[in-house]
Formats: sequence, C-alpha cells, structure tokens
Amino acid sequence: MNEFELIRRYFDRPAGGAIELGIGDDCALLRVPEGELLAVSTDTLVAGRHFLDDVDPFALGHKALAVNLSDLAAMGAAPLGCVLALTVPEALARDDAWLAAFAEGFRALAADAGCPLAGGDTTAGPLVIGVTVFGHVDAARALRRDRARVDDDIWVSGTLGDAAYALSAIAHGRDDAAALGLRERLERPQPRLALGRALLGIAHAAIDLSDGLAGDLRHVLRASGVGAIVDLEAIPLSTPLAALDRERAAGFALAGGDDYELCFTAPCAQRDAVARAAQQGGVACTRIGRIVEGDALTWIDRGRPVDGPAHGHVHFA
Amino acid sequence: MNEFELIRRYFDRPAGGAIELGIGDDCALLRVPEGELLAVSTDTLVAGRHFLDDVDPFALGHKALAVNLSDLAAMGAAPLGCVLALTVPEALARDDAWLAAFAEGFRALAADAGCPLAGGDTTAGPLVIGVTVFGHVDAARALRRDRARVDDDIWVSGTLGDAAYALSAIAHGRDDAAALGLRERLERPQPRLALGRALLGIAHAAIDLSDGLAGDLRHVLRASGVGAIVDLEAIPLSTPLAALDRERAAGFALAGGDDYELCFTAPCAQRDAVARAAQQGGVACTRIGRIVEGDALTWIDRGRPVDGPAHGHVHFA
Repeated sequence: MNEFELIRRYFDRPAGGAIELGIGDDCALLRVPEGELLAVSTDTLVAGRHFLDDVDPFALGHKALAVNLSDLAAMGAAPLGCVLALTVPEALARDDAWLAAFAEGFRALAADAGCPLAGGDTTAGPLVIGVTVFGHVDAARALRRDRARVDDDIWVSGTLGDAAYALSAIAHGRDDAAALGLRERLERPQPRLALGRALLGIAHAAIDLSDGLAGDLRHVLRASGVGAIVDLEAIPLSTPLAALDRERAAGFALAGGDDYELCFTAPCAQRDAVARAAQQGGVACTRIGRIVEGDALTWIDRGRPVDGPAHGHVHFA
Repeated sequence: MNEFELIRRYFDRPAGGAIELGIGDDCALLRVPEGELLAVSTDTLVAGRHFLDDVDPFALGHKALAVNLSDLAAMGAAPLGCVLALTVPEALARDDAWLAAFAEGFRALAADAGCPLAGGDTTAGPLVIGVTVFGHVDAARALRRDRARVDDDIWVSGTLGDAAYALSAIAHGRDDAAALGLRERLERPQPRLALGRALLGIAHAAIDLSDGLAGDLRHVLRASGVGAIVDLEAIPLSTPLAALDRERAAGFALAGGDDYELCFTAPCAQRDAVARAAQQGGVACTRIGRIVEGDALTWIDRGRPVDGPAHGHVHFA
C-alpha cells in the first residue's frame, strides 16, 4: 500500500468544523477564529522509547494524539485539527488489523476532542509517530508558563504518579492488581482540554505534567522568575498510590512522568472560580502550594522542608 | 544533552513576525492574518529512505524545510512559521558539528523564506526528521488541486528531472560532471514560494512536483475530474538532460522525483499574467499542455500519442 492509499484508507474522512480542506492536497486549510491566536504543538512517540513494541495499537493511536492535546489544554486552547506523520516498518504497513486499530484509537479521541485529522504523511521506516495539533486561544488569556505571580496558589488536576507506578509494575513483571488497575492511566491519558478552557481568565500560568511535577513546575518557575513552596501532604494520590510507602509514592508523584494532568497557578481570590472550573472540566483540582519570591522550589512535609526528588526518589528529612 | 538543551542551543531565537510566543512553552502561539485561512503541511524525511547516511547535514537541514515549504508554495500560501520534530540517534545528539550544521541549513532557509521555527520536539531514536509548516492564504484564491478546468493551459516551473538524474548518477557511482553539477538540485531544492504567491488570482490549480510530473499531474486530474494532453517536446530540460538520449531524459523528467517545481493550470487568457508571475517568482515557467474533458492523461511526442512513463521509463511509439 502506498502513502496515498494508506492515508485514504484509514484516515480520510469528510472535512468539517474548522477544516476547510482536508487530506489530499498539498496543504490542509483551516479556519482560525478571528481575533484568536493559533496554538501549535508537536510531539513524537518513538517505538522502544515511549512505548513497548507489543503496545495495544488502539491505545497507541489514542496516546499519540492525547499527549499533544494535553499541550493545547495546558495553554487553554481549543482544538482545531491535527496532522499525523506516521513512519511505519513495511511489515506493519501491511498489517491491516494493527493499522485499523491504531487509526481507530486516534480517530476516537480526535472525535471526542473535536480535533479532526486535517492531513498526514506516511513513510516506510522505523516506527515513529509524529503528531502536530492546532488550536486557538485568546492572546490575553492564554495560560503561558511565564505568567505565574507571587502569592498565586499552585494547583494540580487529578492524581499524580499513577502512570509511573503502572509502568514500574509492568517493567518489573509484577501483576500487582493495584498497578494493573492504573495501566489505563499510562496507556490512555485523558487530555484536560475542558479544564484548560474553563481556566481562561482565572488561572495565570499552566503546564501539563509530562515529565513529573518536580521538573515541570520548575519550568514554570524559571519562565516566570519566581519560586514555590509545595506541601507534599497535599499532593493528590489515587488509592493504590496512597497505600504505598510514603517515599515511594512521592517518588512516583513528583518524579514520574506521563501524568498529563495540568499544574496551574491562580490568585487566592480565585479559589471558588477554580472550584467551578474543575467542575466544568470534570476533574478534581487540588491546591498544593504557593508561588513565592526568589527562584527556589521548596518541598514541605508535615511542616518541615525536605529534599526534593532526585533520580526518581524523594528522601524525607 | 537533553531535549530542552538541544532545542535551546541550536534553535532558540527571539520570537518575531507571526510568532507571538516561540519555543519554550506547551504550545507556540502564532498570529494568522484576519480573513485568511491557515495552510498546514507536514513531511517526514527518514534516513536511508529519503537521504543517504553520509548526507551533508547543512543540506539535510535545508531540504527538510524546503520540501515542506514547497507544499505551501503549491497552495499559494505565504509562510508563517514551522515546527521541527527531530528524532536523532544518541551518537548524533552528541555530535556538535553535525547538529550545528543541520540547524544552520534549516535556519538559513527559514530566514530566507520568512518561516521561523516556532517550536520543536527532540527525541532519541532512529534519524527521522518531521517538519510541519504553517502559512496563510486567501480562501477564494488558494491553488487547490481540484480547481483545474477544461481548456486551462498546463505549466511547469524550472526544469524537470535534474534531481532524479543526479541521484541516479550518485547511486551508480558515476562522477559524471553533468550529473554532479545537478547535485545541488537534489540536495538544495528551492521552494517556489514567490511564484506560488504571484499566481494567486491567475492560476486555477497547482501541485508541487515531488514524485514526478506523471504521477503528480494525475493527482490534479483526479481531484478536478478532468483529463490532460501534455507535449513531451515542451517539457523544459536543463542542458545536461537535454543532451541525454531522449527516452532517458523523459524518464527522469516525467517519472523522477524531488523536482520541487510547481505544476499549475491557468486559463489561456492569463498567458501574459503567468509570464509576469514567473518574472516575479524568479523562475521560468513553460507551457506543456492543456486540460481536456475526460479523465485520461495523454502524452504527445512530435504530434503523435505515446505511452506514458512506466517504472521510470518512457517508451516512445
């Protein structure tokens, strides 16, 4: 099957929504709402690095798009459409069941999120999945990393560390029921698009948690020129993680990746508004700390400063 | 060097032009001119498939962006910016000279074309270069593949087959001076952006020639529901190709890839306007045929129909 057939067979669907001209021309043409900025993000998943070779192709299709939509969510942008650059080994290009399941996972989330595929490129080669998503957002209210202000509350959505715990269980061959129950969090992350939109005009800064809270929050602090104090006891944990040894749970929650929750800052005066946005977004939001002057990220446990996570572990005082 | 450092070191430059917010946040933010559509294209280059392992990294950086800009040109779109998804083997990620040259090739063309890098993603893995470009174009005048009309002239820019001839010479180890003189055409294609813009309101349909005239023109015919008659004697050839055996030259010109010239259709009444657009675009344009009713692509040589190219060769009557 050549490039044209592959795209048409699995992905060609009528244009609609923001897509004025979809798959099949030199460019796709999209309509960006007047007065709004175009938001763009690109993320690549590489076999053996971001996913295991035996990954469920439906889950892979979902995740390839989800990690990109998560970036739109973190900006407060609404999706317009996406393009897919799919490099597949010759054997997979002939594997109808694999391709159909991959396309279905991708398409199901694209439909849910209102982010239709506008174009693509398929090539034979090592399995590498590149997705670029487009969205739109109001310039003045976009949730930029460099907008955190001293005295802002720091919030996170959902629970942290679940995906990292599931990955660790799978990597160690444990069929630990609790970890396996969290496998869904690793393989089928839910981009927090509705929450991101609901936070426009309420939150100052936001980032999506792809590399772990400790690292990702530091990006916000550096970009905004501020420091933070985070209360470890406030970090939201799922029941399986809350049942772990505290240091281990904190390791997953702070230094594990693949959460795809949002971490955002908002003025104290907006606590009720954040609660309403959380409801609109369909996900709990938890206040975990505060933006302060300086450039330090300070972790507090039971009222005392503790060392932050290093190499995936938190060492308590 | 991790992902953040790699992008910052080689690619981070101040935002400007259409880029409201560049590298370093969850999304890049771009301004699309009011009333214009967003044009998007994505293309991937894979080592061993689209380029040789020992390719000059400057040329590779140029080409990765050029093949994408060529798609904007074929739509008549003006560039806004681009994103780069770079998957590189660990050894290359440590090869400062290689990365710097690759980035410089990419950046030089980005600057020339007014298409700055707005964001990116770098990952360790097999060498795969994914670029997505963004441009803007007026909805009514965009050069779509499905706009060719019966009695339109068919035009091509530049000369055809040069890159295919150079590739063939390199593949066969010939250090044929003529072929080597054309190596630049293979490694440093010049996207016809100025020509595409100048053709707005003049041309009906356009496509860029990446897979060879015979295949690419068929995409236009199929999308527009028309046929074509093309005069082989009219196909523009560079001096080295014109000196070849006629069948061989036609094989390169019709079935060779990597030309990155534009093929477009325009009403006969616009011949003078096309000539002016060619001047503005800085590249000669040659009339090679005519759009007709039906769905056939007919090749004419010295007044008689001949078979089209099959497997890279044209068999004359």
